[in-house]
Amino acid sequence: MTVDGLVLVDAKLVTVRRRNDPFRGMPALPGGFVELGETTLEAVVREVREETGLETRMVRLVGVFSDPDRDPRGHTVSIAYALEAIGGRLKAGSDAAAIILVDPDEPPKMAFDHNAIVRKWRGP
Amino acid sequence: MTVDGLVLVDAKLVTVRRRNDPFRGMPALPGGFVELGETTLEAVVREVREETGLETRMVRLVGVFSDPDRDPRGHTVSIAYALEAIGGRLKAGSDAAAIILVDPDEPPKMAFDHNAIVRKWRGP
Repeated sequence: MTVDGLVLVDAKLVTVRRRNDPFRGMPALPGGFVELGETTLEAVVREVREETGLETRMVRLVGVFSDPDRDPRGHTVSIAYALEAIGGRLKAGSDAAAIILVDPDEPPKMAFDHNAIVRKWRGP
Repeated sequence: MTVDGLVLVDAKLVTVRRRNDPFRGMPALPGGFVELGETTLEAVVREVREETGLETRMVRLVGVFSDPDRDPRGHTVSIAYALEAIGGRLKAGSDAAAIILVDPDEPPKMAFDHNAIVRKWRGP
């Protein structure tokens, strides 16, 4: 199980350029695997901190994304949360080659099903 | 990862009396483990069908419940969905000793953290 975070900074969506395969070099939402003994909310706040330097808190649950084909490595389910930044400063972490701020309404092609997650977050 | 379904029949919440430990004999929301290759939504519709005989469709995502202590067998995360019955008829399946229809606003003590799930579903 994985988590992904949607955070705006200066009205731009925070994404990270993937350092590793799959989807190496593409922008992705910050996120990663839930560790044993943590809640999904703790996991997304930790992953966003590690990958972007931002301290965040949850605004709302965006959705559960569980299409078996969403990750070429195998069947993962991602829980996506909208977060707001409450501290820290943007700095790419070890899994991320760079931070990329994108237009949330017209994002570039992203890794996994992250474009679908962004569409769900922005709403109809 | 597990899924749980919240379904009303005649304005009562459909629960199943657990046949097995943990929480044997207690009412629980119908649900169970997500199988490889199915979406969480497919899983909850399947589990509700197997345990209650009802055909359902999703109304909305209620929440993600991931407290590490929610299941004494180990760390599970449950995705809870509100569903509506669209067919079938109530009949206890193999994992359930009986169907119990409960007052959704004053349910009895339930297995796992299912009372918390019901509270979240009913709202503030």
